[in-house]
Amino acid sequence: MEIRHATPLTVTTGDISLYRALTGSRHALFSAATFAEANGYDGLPIDPLLAFHVVFGKTVPDISLNAVANLGYADGRFPLAIYPGDTLTAISEVIGIKENSNGKTGVVYVRTRGFNQDGLEALSYVRWVMVNKRDAASPAPEAQIPDLPDNVDPATLNFSRAYSAWDNTLAGSAHRFGDYEIGEKINHVDGMTVEEAEHQIATRLYQNTAKVHFDAHGQKASRFGKRLIYGGVVISIARALSFNGLANAAELLAINGGTHTGPLFAGDTVYAWSEVLDKAELSDSVGALRLRLVAVKDQDPGAFALRGEDGKYAPGVCLDFDYWAAIPK
Amino acid sequence: MEIRHATPLTVTTGDISLYRALTGSRHALFSAATFAEANGYDGLPIDPLLAFHVVFGKTVPDISLNAVANLGYADGRFPLAIYPGDTLTAISEVIGIKENSNGKTGVVYVRTRGFNQDGLEALSYVRWVMVNKRDAASPAPEAQIPDLPDNVDPATLNFSRAYSAWDNTLAGSAHRFGDYEIGEKINHVDGMTVEEAEHQIATRLYQNTAKVHFDAHGQKASRFGKRLIYGGVVISIARALSFNGLANAAELLAINGGTHTGPLFAGDTVYAWSEVLDKAELSDSVGALRLRLVAVKDQDPGAFALRGEDGKYAPGVCLDFDYWAAIPK
Amino acid sequence: MEIRHATPLTVTTGDISLYRALTGSRHALFSAATFAEANGYDGLPIDPLLAFHVVFGKTVPDISLNAVANLGYADGRFPLAIYPGDTLTAISEVIGIKENSNGKTGVVYVRTRGFNQDGLEALSYVRWVMVNKRDAASPAPEAQIPDLPDNVDPATLNFSRAYSAWDNTLAGSAHRFGDYEIGEKINHVDGMTVEEAEHQIATRLYQNTAKVHFDAHGQKASRFGKRLIYGGVVISIARALSFNGLANAAELLAINGGTHTGPLFAGDTVYAWSEVLDKAELSDSVGALRLRLVAVKDQDPGAFALRGEDGKYAPGVCLDFDYWAAIPK
Repeated sequence: MEIRHATPLTVTTGDISLYRALTGSRHALFSAATFAEANGYDGLPIDPLLAFHVVFGKTVPDISLNAVANLGYADGRFPLAIYPGDTLTAISEVIGIKENSNGKTGVVYVRTRGFNQDGLEALSYVRWVMVNKRDAASPAPEAQIPDLPDNVDPATLNFSRAYSAWDNTLAGSAHRFGDYEIGEKINHVDGMTVEEAEHQIATRLYQNTAKVHFDAHGQKASRFGKRLIYGGVVISIARALSFNGLANAAELLAINGGTHTGPLFAGDTVYAWSEVLDKAELSDSVGALRLRLVAVKDQDPGAFALRGEDGKYAPGVCLDFDYWAAIPK
Repeated sequence: MEIRHATPLTVTTGDISLYRALTGSRHALFSAATFAEANGYDGLPIDPLLAFHVVFGKTVPDISLNAVANLGYADGRFPLAIYPGDTLTAISEVIGIKENSNGKTGVVYVRTRGFNQDGLEALSYVRWVMVNKRDAASPAPEAQIPDLPDNVDPATLNFSRAYSAWDNTLAGSAHRFGDYEIGEKINHVDGMTVEEAEHQIATRLYQNTAKVHFDAHGQKASRFGKRLIYGGVVISIARALSFNGLANAAELLAINGGTHTGPLFAGDTVYAWSEVLDKAELSDSVGALRLRLVAVKDQDPGAFALRGEDGKYAPGVCLDFDYWAAIPK
Repeated sequence: MEIRHATPLTVTTGDISLYRALTGSRHALFSAATFAEANGYDGLPIDPLLAFHVVFGKTVPDISLNAVANLGYADGRFPLAIYPGDTLTAISEVIGIKENSNGKTGVVYVRTRGFNQDGLEALSYVRWVMVNKRDAASPAPEAQIPDLPDNVDPATLNFSRAYSAWDNTLAGSAHRFGDYEIGEKINHVDGMTVEEAEHQIATRLYQNTAKVHFDAHGQKASRFGKRLIYGGVVISIARALSFNGLANAAELLAINGGTHTGPLFAGDTVYAWSEVLDKAELSDSVGALRLRLVAVKDQDPGAFALRGEDGKYAPGVCLDFDYWAAIPK
């Protein structure tokens, strides 16, 4: 079952400005045409996470508008650089389904692909959501659980840009590939308080229409009694905060997994920390770090909160995100 | 009496991004250059309502900065597509005047025209506002009430774009011209809560300087005791909400009339419903729907609230807006 | 000691739109390509204050992230017009140092220069900040106080643009160089209430990362107990408000000095007044006004509050800013 999603979007420098103004992104590679062009791009590119949110937004009316929960991501890839003026469209395919034991809900697995105006695949990812069964009395469909990789193999990414003129000072850090060790944890220190206007503006920028983010009147009757912030807002803010300590790991290459482990509401302050999970060689000039990015709210990220002794996510942990980033050697 | 207004404005892709991020607009025709070019445009155009707000904003210091109320609109037309890089200017002409029976206030009718950098008329509309008489003791001027059309005749619009490659799936709806019936009411379902920051950012984007929208300190002494949201913000949010059910009626062609029937304040949630008032043929590939767009706040739009038994607008009805939209056949 | 700062930034029309939407700027010269081109520019330029905030933002992690206070500005110059697509970088030089008598803090004087992608100097300014001594027990360094001009000599600005087609009506005022008198005070009347989302979005647009502006959770333990608004936000809003009365003084030429005389918080309403401090000839078609721009909060700017009888800044005075602006003759 293939679903072509509505509303193609031409991304522009206006989107770049708004993304920066809403997230605090400071990576030189996605801020300056000069820096990007010196390091293998054909101009100032769109941040892969911005492209991801735009493609994700298109899927909401068809995939998750009435979903109970957004459960996870896997196998996210960004094979094509996107530039201002490019137009993104999205197509999704249902690749798996499983009824939950309660007989009332189930999990649907979807692969979504984003394309540019030439029909070239710009990004793809799998996500799975919990949905209500249309008719609880109907028999359970045969479970089909897709075979998803634990993480994306960097060797399959065909990363071809040379970071031939990477300037540490302009990029904001002297720490390159060789300076990070597997197992190392990094405290990103700064915090960012999110206002209702900010997450609403960001979520509309991505044309994500999920009503839980916008309708304060309707949300009064909901579980939390108020608007819930789109998880992608948390990903982007945490990623922007990770500039403190990971400034050279500017380019998100692949999403290995991700879970929104707790809700974020307006007025909450997002902090973040990272853990280096793995390292890989990409080319003579570029390596890759596999990073766990954890967002916590209203607490010191230097405590590196993740899970409690019961194995459950600790209070205030909002995001557990696993990705590969390119970094100069 | 002709008034040339200050501050010409070059509209850009930055304005397009902000308009989308502030209103939630999702029409493919104003989101994607590819879709627009396949359907008669020369690139990604500016949404006519964005152009309208920009031109309206220019008139505020000269027409309505100290007006008591913005009473209505009529005969709004959009003869020219506007693109990023175009520069808009505005000229207004007072076309009517009438003193109210209290001798203290009066109504002024104004036709405003917006032009592009080549001096071509891009849009025009009539609005009328209630103003205080400068000197209540002065004799009433002779009333001159302009002859305004009840609605714009679509045959006079010279609509020439062919919707030759309209893609229902990308546009977000399978419902075309033939699927709508006169008298049909459409519930747009979703709600949008408006924050102070959002309406202020939008209203400054349009360079509309009316102080009631911005000055919380000064507004404490006003009738409502707080900032009032610019009516154009309500029009654009309601129109964006109308995507649910009217996704193919993307292009606003003409404004027949409009009344801001109640105030909107930050924290209020806007919902909308529409009624098909009339239909007209434009060409082989395009028809027009005359639509009544009603914005209500903090209530179910599926109740289709409009007027009470006393004929007055019902509580919570904020906007009664009458327009023609193009829609593919 | 020279510091090259991180994150070069390509400024775009997206930044122009956001700057307008966040500040309320209405000067024709920075709003319309047509107006700018008719008056000596090669297209729609970036407002000098936007360029200033961008360059200032780059210096924050290296200069003032942990500063106790931002004490003043001097000798700000804008020798080069900046256009969308230009990339700004920044370099700072420490030009002076002085230990305070308490032995715990000191003042550091820094000259910052901003460059475009061709390495041409686009702007420069001096600012001085109060910082904590790293080790209070260490001996005081020898004081070096730079020789700073009381104000920038307009004759040194090499202003070369002719305002050859200045249109008073489009610019919004009939008052030109000859209409202003030294000593004249101007009430800018309107007020602008600043929301948390607005100042945060603006400050991130400039990639200014000072945590006091963003971290509500962390700020609970601070002196004010809440987020503090970046002083540059106050400068730009006050300058935008000064359109009422100074619409033709569109172009900021030089910053003579500036002090953030009191904090601004979300919910406060900014008002502004100006005083003409001096006048100078620039060319046959252009003069310069030396202006004091004062921002006050939650009070009538027509009272022209500045200092009390004790010589200290009066309550609610937030900004005392001294600059030269070009104005047509």
